[in-house]
Amino acid sequence: MKPIIETLLDCDFYKFTMQQFIYSYYPTTDVTFALTNRTSEVRLADMIDIGELSEQLTHVRTLKLNDTELRYLRGLDIYGKRMFSEAYLQFLNTLRLPAFALWQEDGQFVLQFHGSWKEVTLWETFALSIINELYYQSLMKSFTPFAKDCIIAQGRLNLRNKILKLKPHNISFIDFGTRRRFSREWQDYVVEVLKDALSYYGFRGTSNTYLAMKHSISPEGTNAHELQMAVAAIAGSDSEIRASQQRVFEQWYELYGFGLSIALTDTFGSDFFFATVPHEMIETWKGLRQDSGDPFQFGWKALNYYRGKDINPEDKLIIFSDGLNVDTIIDLHNRFNPSIHTSFGWGTNLTNDMGFRTLSLVIKLVSANGKPAVKLSDNLAKAIGPPDEIARYKKIFKYTSEFNQKCEV
Amino acid sequence: MKPIIETLLDCDFYKFTMQQFIYSYYPTTDVTFALTNRTSEVRLADMIDIGELSEQLTHVRTLKLNDTELRYLRGLDIYGKRMFSEAYLQFLNTLRLPAFALWQEDGQFVLQFHGSWKEVTLWETFALSIINELYYQSLMKSFTPFAKDCIIAQGRLNLRNKILKLKPHNISFIDFGTRRRFSREWQDYVVEVLKDALSYYGFRGTSNTYLAMKHSISPEGTNAHELQMAVAAIAGSDSEIRASQQRVFEQWYELYGFGLSIALTDTFGSDFFFATVPHEMIETWKGLRQDSGDPFQFGWKALNYYRGKDINPEDKLIIFSDGLNVDTIIDLHNRFNPSIHTSFGWGTNLTNDMGFRTLSLVIKLVSANGKPAVKLSDNLAKAIGPPDEIARYKKIFKYTSEFNQKCEV
Repeated sequence: MKPIIETLLDCDFYKFTMQQFIYSYYPTTDVTFALTNRTSEVRLADMIDIGELSEQLTHVRTLKLNDTELRYLRGLDIYGKRMFSEAYLQFLNTLRLPAFALWQEDGQFVLQFHGSWKEVTLWETFALSIINELYYQSLMKSFTPFAKDCIIAQGRLNLRNKILKLKPHNISFIDFGTRRRFSREWQDYVVEVLKDALSYYGFRGTSNTYLAMKHSISPEGTNAHELQMAVAAIAGSDSEIRASQQRVFEQWYELYGFGLSIALTDTFGSDFFFATVPHEMIETWKGLRQDSGDPFQFGWKALNYYRGKDINPEDKLIIFSDGLNVDTIIDLHNRFNPSIHTSFGWGTNLTNDMGFRTLSLVIKLVSANGKPAVKLSDNLAKAIGPPDEIARYKKIFKYTSEFNQKCEV
Repeated sequence: MKPIIETLLDCDFYKFTMQQFIYSYYPTTDVTFALTNRTSEVRLADMIDIGELSEQLTHVRTLKLNDTELRYLRGLDIYGKRMFSEAYLQFLNTLRLPAFALWQEDGQFVLQFHGSWKEVTLWETFALSIINELYYQSLMKSFTPFAKDCIIAQGRLNLRNKILKLKPHNISFIDFGTRRRFSREWQDYVVEVLKDALSYYGFRGTSNTYLAMKHSISPEGTNAHELQMAVAAIAGSDSEIRASQQRVFEQWYELYGFGLSIALTDTFGSDFFFATVPHEMIETWKGLRQDSGDPFQFGWKALNYYRGKDINPEDKLIIFSDGLNVDTIIDLHNRFNPSIHTSFGWGTNLTNDMGFRTLSLVIKLVSANGKPAVKLSDNLAKAIGPPDEIARYKKIFKYTSEFNQKCEV
């Protein structure tokens, strides 16, 4: 077996920032993460050998950081201060990833990770990267070497097309494509090319920690829904659940300060966020991340919000990260700059644009301390949780939006 | 310096069949070959370093066949008999390519090869392959690695497009692209891919002797204009010149028999050929090669000719080899099959379709034993020789065609 994951750094940087957060504030919380294939018509378990998948996942459990990798993390001070505490780094240094449960059911994989949140959290992007790469390997199993060459050739020309379109606009963007990449090797290539071609034209870095280290560019990312979801799940009463989102924001700011102060607004619907966010926070924080729903509407909503609160949006930032392609990116950039800064976390379509259909696979938190975890998001197709809990959360967060659009990526 | 030519086999197979012909019938003839850049708006000498070109050419002069290569040639019996005599092989085994003269003038190279015809003849495709590859290297000198990757990517997708178009038609064709290839490495790749993809769908072999040996496919080719041109040039009187073409055909058949009996008809105009070719020859020979003028008209002319002589064209073959692309190939194939067999010697557009413009470079015989050599061809843009000699040959061969079309390749 040729391992797909060869280092624990080959994962999204925000897994480390979140892991330190969990290690610091929620060290005793237990969680379960589970795989969902939103492209359910693709029978993954018929295409990927379960033994091979298991072997790849097991290999990740043998990995530990080497000295250079640890020193790299210790040396990170992107926002003017050391990002990781020595205590956390020592924890990470001794970490082995916990066990996984894997079986197949009706042509799909059931893949679950259960255990201490501070350990389990790291699994997400490793497992997704592995499943995606095995899937594309299976699609190409019967390909001739030339047919495989042509897939790469198409990927290169598609990448060139993106670069040619982006360059004149000087658009700030980040590679967010680790979890849905065509292959590790391909993401590595894409990042190298972007560094050479667009470093001075907007390419800001990658969410992939290993590639950031390898190519000497910025590791990027802040946090994901799992923080708000877990903290809500363990909160207890409806009002505690409602209050929990703000607690996460406060703890986050306490830990990372202004540098990583990008608020992910859609976990329980962005309407709730804008209706309840304290003025001081919205004034202090660097900006917002948009990850579901209509990005243009979100942009206008944010602009109006800032202006309504007498905050100059020109000092603020929106990071768009929901199923982007080059034309949407240019559109959003042109629509909102310079009224507000924009940046783009570009995933699937950046690292997996080879002419194949893409999968919408996620590994999401399903429970914390035995209680179901819920995400509503600004697109009900992305909602997570048991139906009765989703209904309950909708009430708690006064969620009224009907936006529902199938996820392509 | 990384040599472009690494073996004397890396040249068109017909150079060896012609060389044996010359060795056998015209061993004392002296000739001069010279380079012509028909794409004269490209100032080659401004793009290619003359020192580098000289070094590459000089390297070819250091090459000799190794034992395996010699044994490969000795072992060739494609048409049921040993193709090369031991005397010729021994001559070839001791051959070192003769000197060349190279200088620059008005942005172009003057490149001439003078000496014994049986030695000089081999230079043609080596020198053309070298100049072409150096030209494309110079075009890409300032390219980033990614931009170079994209050139190859485009070449791969263009090749796939050809394969997809050709496969359903099962069209017999041969790689004739050695002299105008993008690079040695690329031609090697193209041939390997064609072998895998189309061996059972019409791909018959390559004119490149080294690649035929390497990939275990058929080395293809018969002869070129230089034979008829040199023999005419040294013939003497007008009537001797007029008779010389037929003598070449007879000697050729004597040496190679039916296997290589493809008549190149256009040296002094195909009209002359059809008007004068003896009935016995046209009945005996396998077929014709079309290398200039309108290929469709040529095909109809040949069909009518065969039918007028009560020869069944269904037993005959036309090899088209003039500036082909995949659509023309399919067109010609559909138009003439099964009335007459067709095959296609596919050059520039097969091995040099990368998105760059192509050059129309030739290295042609300019004199034999001090007398000017002339080619008329079925396209006056391809005519070679001093104007007064061209005029003289036109009279000798009753050449009346006005067809004149700039050469793109």
